[in-house]
Amino acid sequence: MKVEVKVRSYDFDPLGVTHFLSYFRFISEAFEELMEAAVRRKAMPKPGVRLKAVEVFGVSLPITKAECRYLAPTRFGELLEVKPELEELQPSHLTIKYKISRKSNGQLVAEARTRHVAVDKSWRRAEIPGELVEIVENLLEDRAEGET
Amino acid sequence: MKVEVKVRSYDFDPLGVTHFLSYFRFISEAFEELMEAAVRRKAMPKPGVRLKAVEVFGVSLPITKAECRYLAPTRFGELLEVKPELEELQPSHLTIKYKISRKSNGQLVAEARTRHVAVDKSWRRAEIPGELVEIVENLLEDRAEGET
Amino acid sequence: MKVEVKVRSYDFDPLGVTHFLSYFRFISEAFEELMEAAVRRKAMPKPGVRLKAVEVFGVSLPITKAECRYLAPTRFGELLEVKPELEELQPSHLTIKYKISRKSNGQLVAEARTRHVAVDKSWRRAEIPGELVEIVENLLEDRAEGET
Amino acid sequence: MKVEVKVRSYDFDPLGVTHFLSYFRFISEAFEELMEAAVRRKAMPKPGVRLKAVEVFGVSLPITKAECRYLAPTRFGELLEVKPELEELQPSHLTIKYKISRKSNGQLVAEARTRHVAVDKSWRRAEIPGELVEIVENLLEDRAEGET
Repeated sequence: MKVEVKVRSYDFDPLGVTHFLSYFRFISEAFEELMEAAVRRKAMPKPGVRLKAVEVFGVSLPITKAECRYLAPTRFGELLEVKPELEELQPSHLTIKYKISRKSNGQLVAEARTRHVAVDKSWRRAEIPGELVEIVENLLEDRAEGET
Repeated sequence: MKVEVKVRSYDFDPLGVTHFLSYFRFISEAFEELMEAAVRRKAMPKPGVRLKAVEVFGVSLPITKAECRYLAPTRFGELLEVKPELEELQPSHLTIKYKISRKSNGQLVAEARTRHVAVDKSWRRAEIPGELVEIVENLLEDRAEGET
Repeated sequence: MKVEVKVRSYDFDPLGVTHFLSYFRFISEAFEELMEAAVRRKAMPKPGVRLKAVEVFGVSLPITKAECRYLAPTRFGELLEVKPELEELQPSHLTIKYKISRKSNGQLVAEARTRHVAVDKSWRRAEIPGELVEIVENLLEDRAEGET
Repeated sequence: MKVEVKVRSYDFDPLGVTHFLSYFRFISEAFEELMEAAVRRKAMPKPGVRLKAVEVFGVSLPITKAECRYLAPTRFGELLEVKPELEELQPSHLTIKYKISRKSNGQLVAEARTRHVAVDKSWRRAEIPGELVEIVENLLEDRAEGET
């Protein structure tokens, strides 16, 4: 799975450099696409209907840690590809690693991570359902699916 | 009432010009300060407690229209003053006008407006309570209060 | 031309309503796509190369006014279509109107406008080149092109 | 040095939880205040004039890594205090740690870090000037200065 994002006019700092904040915007979009694809694969909602992960899998996955290393600058209008990978899996935690590359030449521009804890509808810690893990792993390995 | 805002590093476009979006961020903050001050004046909550307008006045005021005219560029780190005024008042609508000026020399850099409709807890159209209007008018006329 | 945008997790207010700011984000993206398409149609840069409008047409089009009317709420993950139209054209000004609709059923959720002034490389007012107008008009009328 | 920030209406996710992105906004503001205070202490510019760090110290400090751990949720309108500390200092790198706490009761809600590399005007790696380190250390230890 790869998620395409674009450097927008509102992503800049006063020097015309893409702001460090925006890379977290990019991985936020990638994680949203991943969870949306997982929900769709399990529940196949009707067009226009959007189910939440917590409704379909019984858990949601709030972020407990986020980080990003910056490797190369990006430019206005540039298309980037965010490739998420499952880096760590524990009963109630998981860490996703994101490789952010230029679409034009594949150059890695940033590497990020989000760590998530599984919580149930009442925000109590929960186990990550095996079915969710399996679907996520399949989606992440899939080269075609999930591109937007 | 004047609300001080600051042009931040994340407010820029690729040319190093403050993004047109950010002026809506500035007036959003000014409106938040106005409503927070109105709630405080009526309800005097304990420190650390934050009541919503709808809890205190029975209505909230979602935005139905927003606009901004751009008159002069602003720079990174610049302090701006947003001065809200009540421009139009109808039974269930009001329009607030915002003059955005440089703190350093008073130069007007943008002029904006938000139009609001009053809705009750169930998001049905409601009348704006006279008490809320009175408090807002007093706050807006007050030169000292509400500065942050 | 229609530009597809998506309501993201970072687009919300404390009540879970899409923030009024985000609709300006959506039209910013639509205008960026329009200008990028105009540049591509005129200059056909190599892949990975991104020319600025001012380099290709001799003018850039900073925003002098922006406005948005909000008609219906939108939901997390919802796909919206932004359809720009040329509403007003003067020698050195133009106004673009944006109809923002749900992709699922075409319902109009917001209507926005941006007014632009043409400036040259030194930020002096300039005339909008006839060629730019023609390309923009062709792009806006085109039902297929410019979709992302 | 402590920098006060406020959770704004545009800081939320669809569930009404402060978005993980916004904590990077908060530390961005804290770092901006720190650098602005350092520049002021060295150069004492006239009111309304804002010098860049690179003009005053010969280096700027772009971010090479950013991270945040999330410990407790925050609410709309809540005042937070960001307390930066110098965690690591090397000839051309430094790491700043940020403790983000509720102003009302001091509870720690997040802990973040930014790592910076010193570069000169041509974006070549440079040594961090001793004078800049000294000023930053003084500012960070100062309990009063730098509050906004």
